[in-house]
Amino acid sequence: MINTQMEELGKAPSKIREIFEYGKRRKAEIGEDRVFDFSIGNPNVPAPAEVNAVYKSLIDSHDDIWLHGYTSAAGDLDTRGAIVKDLNRRFGTSFRAENLYITCGAAASLKIAITALVTPGDEFVTFTPFFPEYRVFVETAGARLVACPTNPDTFQIDFERLESVISENTKAVLVNSPNNPSGVVFRESAVKQLAELLSAKEQEYGHAIYLISDEPYRELVYDPEIEVPYMTKYYKDTVVCYSYSKSLSLPGERIGYILVPDEADHAEDLRAAVAGAGRALGYVCAPSLTQHVIEKCVGLVSDLSVYKTNRDLLYDALTEYGYTCVHPDGAFYLFVKALEEDASAFCERAKEFELLLVPADSFGTPGYVRIAYCVTTDQIRRSLPAFRELAMSYR
Amino acid sequence: MINTQMEELGKAPSKIREIFEYGKRRKAEIGEDRVFDFSIGNPNVPAPAEVNAVYKSLIDSHDDIWLHGYTSAAGDLDTRGAIVKDLNRRFGTSFRAENLYITCGAAASLKIAITALVTPGDEFVTFTPFFPEYRVFVETAGARLVACPTNPDTFQIDFERLESVISENTKAVLVNSPNNPSGVVFRESAVKQLAELLSAKEQEYGHAIYLISDEPYRELVYDPEIEVPYMTKYYKDTVVCYSYSKSLSLPGERIGYILVPDEADHAEDLRAAVAGAGRALGYVCAPSLTQHVIEKCVGLVSDLSVYKTNRDLLYDALTEYGYTCVHPDGAFYLFVKALEEDASAFCERAKEFELLLVPADSFGTPGYVRIAYCVTTDQIRRSLPAFRELAMSYR
Repeated sequence: MINTQMEELGKAPSKIREIFEYGKRRKAEIGEDRVFDFSIGNPNVPAPAEVNAVYKSLIDSHDDIWLHGYTSAAGDLDTRGAIVKDLNRRFGTSFRAENLYITCGAAASLKIAITALVTPGDEFVTFTPFFPEYRVFVETAGARLVACPTNPDTFQIDFERLESVISENTKAVLVNSPNNPSGVVFRESAVKQLAELLSAKEQEYGHAIYLISDEPYRELVYDPEIEVPYMTKYYKDTVVCYSYSKSLSLPGERIGYILVPDEADHAEDLRAAVAGAGRALGYVCAPSLTQHVIEKCVGLVSDLSVYKTNRDLLYDALTEYGYTCVHPDGAFYLFVKALEEDASAFCERAKEFELLLVPADSFGTPGYVRIAYCVTTDQIRRSLPAFRELAMSYR
Repeated sequence: MINTQMEELGKAPSKIREIFEYGKRRKAEIGEDRVFDFSIGNPNVPAPAEVNAVYKSLIDSHDDIWLHGYTSAAGDLDTRGAIVKDLNRRFGTSFRAENLYITCGAAASLKIAITALVTPGDEFVTFTPFFPEYRVFVETAGARLVACPTNPDTFQIDFERLESVISENTKAVLVNSPNNPSGVVFRESAVKQLAELLSAKEQEYGHAIYLISDEPYRELVYDPEIEVPYMTKYYKDTVVCYSYSKSLSLPGERIGYILVPDEADHAEDLRAAVAGAGRALGYVCAPSLTQHVIEKCVGLVSDLSVYKTNRDLLYDALTEYGYTCVHPDGAFYLFVKALEEDASAFCERAKEFELLLVPADSFGTPGYVRIAYCVTTDQIRRSLPAFRELAMSYR
């Protein structure tokens, strides 16, 4: 009678949300500061102070039609101009405003890009571990998600496996670096090798294989020597999906973009398809006031130093307690091997120590848990004895 | 190679947008005040003053995590509570916050509701004239849009025709009252008759036929004696799609809701499907700051008196000049019979008089044009000689 696929998606809330809701109940029971909730990737640092100042000064200095009226579907031209100017300055690219389509955040960017690309029989390849909504976006667009296992010790690309899963049906490869949930960054050498492999496969199959670069965590990298390569410079058929959720700590405002470079295969048609997909999916424009704020705040980044402090504290302690974990270069997650085979059972036992962790089965990597360290440093400090006791309980 | 359906949607910008873009070019050529642009339904009255004051005071009095963080997918609970309280006060209903799912505006409301309902083979019935994006939303969800002609003199429901187009495959009937583009309101007697017919058809086919009530123009009615019936009170299987774009003049902010009453058939499953569809379509939550603003501003309405002034001025003048037009009870459109059979040719001739009108072929009513009077009263006054000359040119 109604759409059962949608009903199931609505009734099976993501594991993450489920644990988050449990956390809220548990905090009400035993007190906020006695529950160590590491479940959700909600930035806990404020936006740069300029952001709120700009919201207010725009309201004071512009009329309502400009502030709150429709922008063009692809976004306000001045905002797009400011964004590409910033990208070109940082990455030595030469994008034009026309390369950008402003969206309601990363999820919208991905869903619109996938919908614009999809044709019957398509496969979208991604690397484990991957953000579980990728599966939702790809499958509800009528395509198949192919999860390509990475090197289990490093979560870096296993090129042999990648080569074996790419086929004539591969429409795109979806990468997320820095990665949610592993924190891993694909370095320049890997990106070059990826570009070479994809170019060879394009030749072999006689059609483009797009690289969708989902990069909301681009600015969340904690060691100055680590560079996050700008994908369009290595591979021409790249589509960048970006969001300001993490870099400006504005996850609720739903603002991001899709970038289709001129050199991408069928770039003009693809940009039209992006606009068409946005239209078909019910996106009229991204929120106008926040678009105008972005114009003035582009290039700013929240003070992310607490994430680095948290990462170092947690990584050092957990490895000392005997946990196994790849050192995360970026994002705000620690991806830890569960101390028993069944990650869900491990997370249940962690709950006895009031630790709320997310089992990573739906990320395509059974046996791991995700720890979101976008929390107060104080919470991390107070949680360490619990992590130690949890480890001890397995001895 | 890419999704050609989406590419076509992107390359065939709506007729409305096309004329709007022509208007921008023409204004640059001959001067802003010499072009009479009636093409686009962009509210030209400011938001109530409280709206901007609330944006600023919320920013001054709350932390960034509350202001800009994720809300739950269905929307901030306090905002949902405030909305249903206002609805219950105005309409004597007894909705709970759980009946609401806050969306990124009317287009998102419709797309999510349609996606939640759709199963293979479905038909969605709507009445001519209808907002052209209905076709886009329904067809890209995999269903068929059935356009049911209305009474050609009144644009009121022709119940015989409606009965003839409803079939076993009818999943929903989509109504828009006050109507874009005709301005017509379905009165209580018509709504009662509609409810009776749909109830009988539900009995006949043994399954629910939902009524989707798309009502962004609910508050835009200019005569105190005209009531816009609240659909859920007449027909239990109603889903309300609302937007604050017109009532609060916030079209760019993308904020609205879907309401599924408890008494609707399969209400709980349908609410889950709405949440699932929102998730699948890439909507994470509606913009958080604006959600909080709505909580404080619910029940306010922009000063719409200029629309009434405009309607009266334009309706009286155009009928005096010999144009045929149904008296619009609401919305901000005048729906006028073209003075020749081909509405596009008529609009081209209107351009010679610098009048930018929208041919209504894509609204399912060839031979008509839409005049959006959400412009300054001064523009209307200055345009009247051009409308007169256009009429004279056909004598």
